[in-house]
Amino acid sequence: MNITKQAVINAYIPEQLEPGTVAECFAPSNIALCKYWGKRDVELNLPINASLSISLGELGSRTKIAESTTGEDQVSLNGELLAPDSRFARKVINFIDLFRRDLRQPVSVSTVNNIPTAAGLASSASGFAALTLAINDFYGLGLTSEVLSAFARMGSGSASRSIYQGFVEWHKGNREDGMDSCAEQLELEWPGFRIGLLKVATGEKKVDSRAGMQRTVESAPLYQSWPQQAAQDLATIKRALSDRDFELLGQTAEQNALSMHATMIASWPPLLYWQPESVAAMQQVWELRALGIPVYLTMDAGPNLKLLFLNEHETDVRDAFPGLMEFDIVSPFD
Amino acid sequence: MNITKQAVINAYIPEQLEPGTVAECFAPSNIALCKYWGKRDVELNLPINASLSISLGELGSRTKIAESTTGEDQVSLNGELLAPDSRFARKVINFIDLFRRDLRQPVSVSTVNNIPTAAGLASSASGFAALTLAINDFYGLGLTSEVLSAFARMGSGSASRSIYQGFVEWHKGNREDGMDSCAEQLELEWPGFRIGLLKVATGEKKVDSRAGMQRTVESAPLYQSWPQQAAQDLATIKRALSDRDFELLGQTAEQNALSMHATMIASWPPLLYWQPESVAAMQQVWELRALGIPVYLTMDAGPNLKLLFLNEHETDVRDAFPGLMEFDIVSPFD
Repeated sequence: MNITKQAVINAYIPEQLEPGTVAECFAPSNIALCKYWGKRDVELNLPINASLSISLGELGSRTKIAESTTGEDQVSLNGELLAPDSRFARKVINFIDLFRRDLRQPVSVSTVNNIPTAAGLASSASGFAALTLAINDFYGLGLTSEVLSAFARMGSGSASRSIYQGFVEWHKGNREDGMDSCAEQLELEWPGFRIGLLKVATGEKKVDSRAGMQRTVESAPLYQSWPQQAAQDLATIKRALSDRDFELLGQTAEQNALSMHATMIASWPPLLYWQPESVAAMQQVWELRALGIPVYLTMDAGPNLKLLFLNEHETDVRDAFPGLMEFDIVSPFD
Repeated sequence: MNITKQAVINAYIPEQLEPGTVAECFAPSNIALCKYWGKRDVELNLPINASLSISLGELGSRTKIAESTTGEDQVSLNGELLAPDSRFARKVINFIDLFRRDLRQPVSVSTVNNIPTAAGLASSASGFAALTLAINDFYGLGLTSEVLSAFARMGSGSASRSIYQGFVEWHKGNREDGMDSCAEQLELEWPGFRIGLLKVATGEKKVDSRAGMQRTVESAPLYQSWPQQAAQDLATIKRALSDRDFELLGQTAEQNALSMHATMIASWPPLLYWQPESVAAMQQVWELRALGIPVYLTMDAGPNLKLLFLNEHETDVRDAFPGLMEFDIVSPFD
């Protein structure tokens, strides 16, 4: 009896579309400080818990939709035309199909990710957010940010947060159609806030996060405690943000991320995204903290670390991770 | 209002002791298949959950108590006389003090651990078990195994299991004096059962397991789900043992161990006993399984792995961990 994506979207878009000729939109990557882990509805990507992220400013995805000149749908990624049956092209066209009703107008979609390879960041959040924004422009849908966020969420959960810059909260929502499970930007800037992107390992991950969270929900007894912890962490992080309490923020974000990884490790078969190099980098972060430098780590469904610190410690942090590892620093508010 | 160790012990030992001149006892090390993690009573070492282990046959501690010839208590470890105020000597003498009433008879205690250094095993379980057995003999206490197990538990929780060989269950117990929180040997042998002791890293651990479990109980929200999981895992392991279902046993033991580590990782500050080499070895175990070799891992509050497998896969497992790492294989029933 679950509602389909198509049914949800149909209720929000006009019967008659009036496509333009071209639309181009950007959406940033985001790093969750309170993680999204576990779906209560797989079709609509409705989360079991609310989450909170920081967007990465100019790092993200730029997506352009134009009328196709070849009479066929075309998808390119980072300047390269993809085969129509490639995984990425199918995901993009399937998503556009949800919005274009019975229009017989082929489109050309080009996506460019400017996320440095070094970052080791997933691009599905910024990619689906930019695509949703471009669809809204191209087909003249005139949708609000909340609706766009909910629609982007149906492409990739965390894309709901990439509709906005700054600190963003993705509400869990209660509605069956999920339309209240959308993100909202917090009215809050924090100049000096820094995010270090630390790539410690390469290689495709064997279990994507969609499958990973499903395995966790189904097989990890410890996951039972996760929703309550996430709710509490989210409240603590919001308080830390409004008080500009960096240590409370960092501590809560790090414990939240490690608790998410803990639920994966407690799954069957065990889901360990960490590589030996991840552990070495984690230990180095803890050593920095032992030296009195307030730097905290967060990690997503992969081996890489994201570091949280303030501008006055940028040099300390940079010096601690010399040469060997690729490292980028993002300043979302400066 | 907590009952003290001394009060508990006083109720079980005679007013007038009749010490012999010498007693010598051995107790094996044990590896938990369902882990003990978390105390409900710190004074008596009463556990939050029941646990189950396999004893390591001839690997363990041999402890001899004799009348002292110097007029002073003396403690030696592995043939070396210790300073009376050393940590180990104080622990041993404090424990003996609980049993010798007001006897003014100095003793000489010598403990030899034959656990290969390669094993990276804690010796407190076998050490306190052997000491308890030797105390029982030396002072002629005539206590049952259940009582001795409960007394050993007051020295070190998992020592309760080292009173026995084979598969051993440590009951959680309910009594306030903890005397029903003792271990019992399962009537079950499994020839062919093998335990690989894989030492991947050296060095003192920074947080001992006593402090580690306390931190977890106090700071990890995910720990809330642990007692229930442990109870379920214990029941599954007992079923797997009685059915000789090695895969179910291995799977449950591995998930149990990783879930215990998950609760540590979810603590604050994070408690990660793993070293980069631990992760590499874990991945290697999982690769062996992917090749169809039924080998499972378990880990305690340290970086080393213990592998569970059957004799027919001994060569496969040995070949997978050549030279670089120290490796011992224990055959508890052969």
